[in-house]
This record gives sequence, C-alpha cells and structure tokens, in this order.
Amino acid sequence: MRRPLFLISNDDGYNYGGIQTLIAVARQLGDVVVVAPGTHQSGMASAITTTAPVTAGRLIDEPGFTVWTVNGTPADCVKLACDQLLRDRLPDLVLTGINHGFNAGLSTIYSGTMGCAFEGLAHGLPSIAFSLGSYALDADFSPCVPYIRRIVERVLEFGLPAGVCLNVNFPVGEILGLRVTTTAMGRWINEYEHRVNPSGMDYYWIQGDYRCDDPRDTATDIYWLDRGWATVTPCHLDQTDHATMSQISELLL
Amino acid sequence: MRRPLFLISNDDGYNYGGIQTLIAVARQLGDVVVVAPGTHQSGMASAITTTAPVTAGRLIDEPGFTVWTVNGTPADCVKLACDQLLRDRLPDLVLTGINHGFNAGLSTIYSGTMGCAFEGLAHGLPSIAFSLGSYALDADFSPCVPYIRRIVERVLEFGLPAGVCLNVNFPVGEILGLRVTTTAMGRWINEYEHRVNPSGMDYYWIQGDYRCDDPRDTATDIYWLDRGWATVTPCHLDQTDHATMSQISELLL
Repeated sequence: MRRPLFLISNDDGYNYGGIQTLIAVARQLGDVVVVAPGTHQSGMASAITTTAPVTAGRLIDEPGFTVWTVNGTPADCVKLACDQLLRDRLPDLVLTGINHGFNAGLSTIYSGTMGCAFEGLAHGLPSIAFSLGSYALDADFSPCVPYIRRIVERVLEFGLPAGVCLNVNFPVGEILGLRVTTTAMGRWINEYEHRVNPSGMDYYWIQGDYRCDDPRDTATDIYWLDRGWATVTPCHLDQTDHATMSQISELLL
Repeated sequence: MRRPLFLISNDDGYNYGGIQTLIAVARQLGDVVVVAPGTHQSGMASAITTTAPVTAGRLIDEPGFTVWTVNGTPADCVKLACDQLLRDRLPDLVLTGINHGFNAGLSTIYSGTMGCAFEGLAHGLPSIAFSLGSYALDADFSPCVPYIRRIVERVLEFGLPAGVCLNVNFPVGEILGLRVTTTAMGRWINEYEHRVNPSGMDYYWIQGDYRCDDPRDTATDIYWLDRGWATVTPCHLDQTDHATMSQISELLL
C-alpha cells in the first residue's frame, strides 16, 4: 500500500510553529505537500482571489516532501492545489493549521484555517482544521501532537462522513481529553479600537471580546476549551436554515 | 413612528448599478446609511481585515442619506458600521447587494454579499442579501425592484426568525415568481485557467463551472433560478453538523 498523501495549508504562512508541528506529525505518517499563503492571512474565511491571478512558488521539492507558497488566500491555496498543483494525485487528507489562536465559537466564520478545511470539503476530500488557543509565535504545540496523530490515523483508516469536515481546537497547556462539541453561538462586543493618526484622521483596529449566548451550554466548543479539553466539531458547508423555510414562505409568499 | 433606518452594503463598491438600485428602493421606505468597500471585493466571503487598521471616508452626508466608503472587506463595512459609525442608532434592517452575479449554490460560501448579511446577522440584525444572475455592469435590475420592495416591507413589519438571514437571488430578465429554497450543494470544476507570462512564469486565473450533485432536486436555489424564478434561502451562521456528532464520537473517542 502506498503512503498516504497529505495536503497541508494554514492561514499564517509556512514559517510558523503551528504548521511546522503539523508537518512533522504528517511526515511520520505519509508524504506531504504543503501549499501555504506567502503572507499572513488571518481572518480571511473562505475568501478567494478573483480580481488578480494567483501564482505558486516551489520552495522545497524533495522525495515525499514538497512546499509551495501561493500569493493568495488560504482557500486559494487548497483550491489551486486540488485543481492544478496536485491534479495527478489528489491528497488522501487535507490538514490545516495548527492555527495560532482558537477557531471556536463565532470565530469559525472568519477563520482562514477553516476556509482551507471547507475548501478541501468542497473538493470531496476528508479535511481537518487544527487550532491552539494561543497567538504566541513560540506557543508550545507539543501537547497537541498525540491528539493530532490519533485523529489523523483514525480518519485515514475510517474516513469521515460525507459532507463533513472537522474543526479541532486545543486549549493551552495540559489537555484533559477530547470532546465532540457544537460551535458556540454568541457575539463579539467592543469590536474596534478607535485611534486618530497624526493628521487627525480616524482609524480603527479590530479587537473584540466574545460573549456566548449561553455560557452554561455544555455542548459547545467554548464551554470545554474553557475547562482545558480539546474539542472537535463536525462542520458542513450548507448554511440553509431548513427549520424556518415554511415560516419564511408564510412571511413572503 | 420614525422612519426605518437601512444599512446598505455590498461587495462591488458604491459606484455600481446593483447597489444604486437597492439604495433607490430603500430611500422610498426610510433613511439610508451606505457603508460600502472602496474597491471591488468579490469572493471575500466573511473575511475581515486583521493585519491593518480600517478607515472610513464620508462621501455624502445629507438628511436621511449618508454614504461611507471603507478601505476593507464587505464584512468590515457592516462590522465597522454596527460597532462605530452607527453606534448611536443601529439599523432596523441590513441590506446588501444587489450583487452583479448569482450567490447561489456553493457560491454562497465565497460571497462577500453574503458576508455582509452574515455580519448583520452576527449583530442580531435582520439582514437580507440580494443578487442578480448577471455580471454585466449595465445589467437591468428593474425586474427585481417590486420583489425587493415586497420582501423589505414584509421583513420590516414582521421581522425574521432569530438567527436567520435571507439570501435572495434573481434570474436575468422576466421573473416568474418567488420560491423559498435550499442552497444547492455541488462542486466547481475547471477552477483555474493556467497561463504563462512573458518571463515564463506560471499564473492562474480563477474561473470554474458549477456542477450540482443532483440537478433534479426541486428544493434548491439553482433548480428554480434555472427556470426563471427568484429564490429566497433562509441561512444561519452555525455550520455544526449535528447529525454526525455521535458518529464522530465513535470514530475518535
């Protein structure tokens, strides 16, 4: 049986501790092609580049290990990999991250790391996003490694349900175990810090505090991350609210 | 009763026929604040600007009609409007579009127009995205107007279900009626056109053809748009796949 092929991407770029950790785990299990953004691309969600062409540069080309950087978004990286760079052999598994910072709760909708996983899913590939709750460049990813290894091995062996990718988040420090969770709904407050530049012009830096709608909801990712557990949330692409379709019909038709 | 306040955004920028049509309809019904990107921002999904500050310039400031442009993404526009520019009075309704081009099927996940509606929804505001199936700068938006007016009036009067925004798409030309639909799942093929520049360097332009998983599924937006109907799809933020949580537990725990 030939070695599995992993496509690895992220939203931070190649020179970050998170993706280096993920690459190290994956190379123990199979061949690896990295296709990552050339520049930091946090908060890019599923954005794709439409008004300019994208290019890809090959940094490393060794047997079993290739690294490309792309002048585009995280989703561009996975899309270009699947449609062009890897067209001779699609990956067995798409891995993305490890992000420096949680992608839990409503952060999920802005996450470039999840943008990669959703793009893999859109190509029908088993896809897993990993994130750690620390923005530090020198964050310690080592407690995540046994969890990543186990999740990757299980998904390689058994696959994922059709139409589903995984969003995995790790707390900082000791990990008490793994929970399957929902995405906490909630909202951001204090989203910008207003400043005035030396010419008197207003500008706004994004910031924000997250408030859960119900912080006691024991099903959510944020509930368990707060308590030191790793979380895995199955996610799909379809955002149709099937439950209210008849109500919307009554309202509008 | 005071006039309703509409926040209007899009992903094309202020100087496009689609948003001008939407503004004209809204100004007949209430006061309007436009907060739109300063440059074309197609395909930006829910991307937000995190690595630089955003700024806002006020182009028009008349009684009942204000126009801002923001050097950011579509979602930035709505986020900055709700957190900073409109903090004295939040809008009664967030309207976005009319996009030049469908945001139906799997396009929804890349759509900056939907990014605006999702951002309004994340702020707890009733939010509606509108799109027409033509990329033409001089597209004829007039057949959409009575539909937009009716939808906006109904939502102003009765509101929307909690946690739900609307994704409205219009076919080009005569509109046979309005259907409440699901988002067609499917996939893109032939996603890039590969070219070589005069220096011999590869570059890739995004393109793509959409293939529905089941084009006979009569519940979907694409099915009805293909047949000349306008579609409205209720959408929510949560992408958790609740149906497979126990299956994922068995796989990983």
